[in-house]
Amino acid sequence: MSVEAAIARVRDLIGERLSTSPSVRDLHGQNESYFTPVPPDAVAFPHSTEEVSAIVKICNEELCPIVAWGTGTSLEGHAVAFNGGISLDMSEMNRVLEIHAEDMDAVVQPGVTREQLNTELRATGLFFPVDPGANASLGGMAATRASGTTAVRYGTMRENVMALEVVLADGRIIRTGSRARKSSAGYDLTKMMVGSEGTLGIITELTVRLQGQPESITAAVCPFPDMQSAVNTVIQTIQMGVPMARIEIVDPVAIRAVNISGAMSLPEAPHLFVEFHGTEAGAKEQVELFGEIAKEHGCMGFEWSANLEERNRLWHARHNFYYASLKLKPGCRALSTDVCVPISRLAEALLETAEEIAESGMISPIIGHVGDGNFHCGFLIDPAKPEELELAKKLTHSMNRRAIRLGGTVTGEHGVGVGKKRYMEEEHGAAYAVMAEIKRALDPKNILNPGKVVEVN
Amino acid sequence: MSVEAAIARVRDLIGERLSTSPSVRDLHGQNESYFTPVPPDAVAFPHSTEEVSAIVKICNEELCPIVAWGTGTSLEGHAVAFNGGISLDMSEMNRVLEIHAEDMDAVVQPGVTREQLNTELRATGLFFPVDPGANASLGGMAATRASGTTAVRYGTMRENVMALEVVLADGRIIRTGSRARKSSAGYDLTKMMVGSEGTLGIITELTVRLQGQPESITAAVCPFPDMQSAVNTVIQTIQMGVPMARIEIVDPVAIRAVNISGAMSLPEAPHLFVEFHGTEAGAKEQVELFGEIAKEHGCMGFEWSANLEERNRLWHARHNFYYASLKLKPGCRALSTDVCVPISRLAEALLETAEEIAESGMISPIIGHVGDGNFHCGFLIDPAKPEELELAKKLTHSMNRRAIRLGGTVTGEHGVGVGKKRYMEEEHGAAYAVMAEIKRALDPKNILNPGKVVEVN
Repeated sequence: MSVEAAIARVRDLIGERLSTSPSVRDLHGQNESYFTPVPPDAVAFPHSTEEVSAIVKICNEELCPIVAWGTGTSLEGHAVAFNGGISLDMSEMNRVLEIHAEDMDAVVQPGVTREQLNTELRATGLFFPVDPGANASLGGMAATRASGTTAVRYGTMRENVMALEVVLADGRIIRTGSRARKSSAGYDLTKMMVGSEGTLGIITELTVRLQGQPESITAAVCPFPDMQSAVNTVIQTIQMGVPMARIEIVDPVAIRAVNISGAMSLPEAPHLFVEFHGTEAGAKEQVELFGEIAKEHGCMGFEWSANLEERNRLWHARHNFYYASLKLKPGCRALSTDVCVPISRLAEALLETAEEIAESGMISPIIGHVGDGNFHCGFLIDPAKPEELELAKKLTHSMNRRAIRLGGTVTGEHGVGVGKKRYMEEEHGAAYAVMAEIKRALDPKNILNPGKVVEVN
Repeated sequence: MSVEAAIARVRDLIGERLSTSPSVRDLHGQNESYFTPVPPDAVAFPHSTEEVSAIVKICNEELCPIVAWGTGTSLEGHAVAFNGGISLDMSEMNRVLEIHAEDMDAVVQPGVTREQLNTELRATGLFFPVDPGANASLGGMAATRASGTTAVRYGTMRENVMALEVVLADGRIIRTGSRARKSSAGYDLTKMMVGSEGTLGIITELTVRLQGQPESITAAVCPFPDMQSAVNTVIQTIQMGVPMARIEIVDPVAIRAVNISGAMSLPEAPHLFVEFHGTEAGAKEQVELFGEIAKEHGCMGFEWSANLEERNRLWHARHNFYYASLKLKPGCRALSTDVCVPISRLAEALLETAEEIAESGMISPIIGHVGDGNFHCGFLIDPAKPEELELAKKLTHSMNRRAIRLGGTVTGEHGVGVGKKRYMEEEHGAAYAVMAEIKRALDPKNILNPGKVVEVN
């Protein structure tokens, strides 16, 4: 029983699709945050559910850790094999298997990315709404319970994954859920797997909900005199029941990054970026109502556009904040973190965080999916200065504890991975032990992404 | 270790709030379907989470089954203690603990009923949308993953329970989820508990999402020449993205029942009962769009009303179908069952079911939350004629197998209880064993509602 034996047996099974080359391994040891890269011992590229099952079975017998890999865009070290073992790269299981336009759902393999799915859906008048920014794989998005800019209207992966095919630790293949819109038939294994970060099973197929392309889409950009006014606008908009498709807060530091990157040219003030979906009349009504609310809260201008190109430019800039922000401090890396609190505590959470960052001297844009009470910091740190990483961790720590204190969660959408694990007990209390009990029941040998989410040893 | 010992110890704990009187026990042995009443050995009326914890702990030590009881309105025998033991009546834990109007959520004890919550919410401009018809307790609704007429717009209990306090089999008290709108912090224990029918834990507190009262509500009643046309209208309405608040199909037998009961006076044809929520202009736009679609499909009339009294009469009649239908066959009982299929298979599922019922000579109204692909039959059976119960079971069996064959589920909202348990393996395949593994991990002595949902012995 050893990792070496597992690798040899998997090589017998899939031949050259098991790689131990340093370059392939290094690529699968990277991450988009501050965690030290650790290459896995080997990388396997399965082509079918049956292959995944056979590989996992071997790993279970040989006590070899196995970590699923989508596109490597997760932010808390989820897909890094810190305990060694095999990285299971799902990118070659990337077919859209079925599109059920009448039922507004699609069945896909886990390596399909969200942009790929939306491209394949173009002719149907339907789209897949969950949009975390990165062109992540749907398997990875389900595993981390991803969401993003449109969750305020269309929900997160939690709401948009209807059914799964999953390979369990012992190689069993199960199907959870169905294409029916609702069910009361037993425990919700789909929701248990969504967000389990590859620690309870490997997702080999997903059925996801689709939405009809709205008749009309309108976007707007509004600067505010201060963050508080922007947040109050958000709260009132949500309470008035305006069905916003997107409502993002962007702080002045983030605006500066966008301006420097050349994507846009905006006043360096707190902004809301918003988008409205509906019928022609419905979207117009939303824009007007939102405009009134924003004005009441001192909005310093309100430009809106139904023009596709301008909208694309706006959301492209929003999606590229992460990379744009790196330009604020040449040579830096970003420690990206997120928390989520009840809307009523959002102003408090945001303002205290902003104040603390300002006092620390750290540079960090603050942006957020504020309609959900979710916001992000991207602490810019010089890799050559360990004290900056320490300061960023200290500020993150403070944000996390504040979120818990305000009745929220230490991560709204990035996930636990290894980065947020230390807060799990504080956030969940006695319930955290129950997560470990479930992990032990389903993966008694702890081979599935060991060390992530829960500790079972 | 015995049930008797458990009862004695619980009596020591809560005194007269533990009852073994035959009338109280009989009341808690009843159910609203065809299952033979079985009184529990005792009924306990806890007043606090700590009491529930202490009682469950005693039951765990004494190997005494414990079955939570809400209002007794479930339909698959969920709350009946078929294996004896203690019925835990939650009706005295019935306080609305917190209303967070800004966050649009409320924290309630499990014995609060949905009507009670909505009464307490009246002054806030908010309402709790899930509406299964019966004035069920919220704890029971969460436990059975209930939904009802408004799920097409606002979701089921799955989407509307944000957080729970739960007592586990060994008496541990845990809190799952939070008041944040979303989270990626670990396994979704909230969703695991919702729909677990008291087999994994006893819900002692719920945080539920609320909705803003719509500015405008409009309802309509439309007769169609046949079921197919009505179903096609539903499919197209959903696909056009019309955000229906309610869309119910009512077959001619159900219409006859409503007419006999005196609630309404409608032509004996298939009907759609619909409701639209929105702004003044938005609801009007929905009505018009729906009207056009209905007309295209041969709708034989389209009366709509924004009048509160008329709407109340309509939904009151809809909610009373169950009791009205009993008037179609004096002295009868109803075997009520539900299935849910993907929308594209709804016409097939409904029409084959209707045909089979007609051929059998059985009387059964068919009504359904068709926007979700969910529909119900209420087989009217004479308790003195066992052959009628057998026939109803045969027809139910056929419906269930048809739903599975069409990619659906044997229950969209009623739950498993004992009535649907025999179909679980067929619906879930290898995943059914995983449910049992979870049950064993969390309730190793099988004291929590034993015999429901899964079999673990």
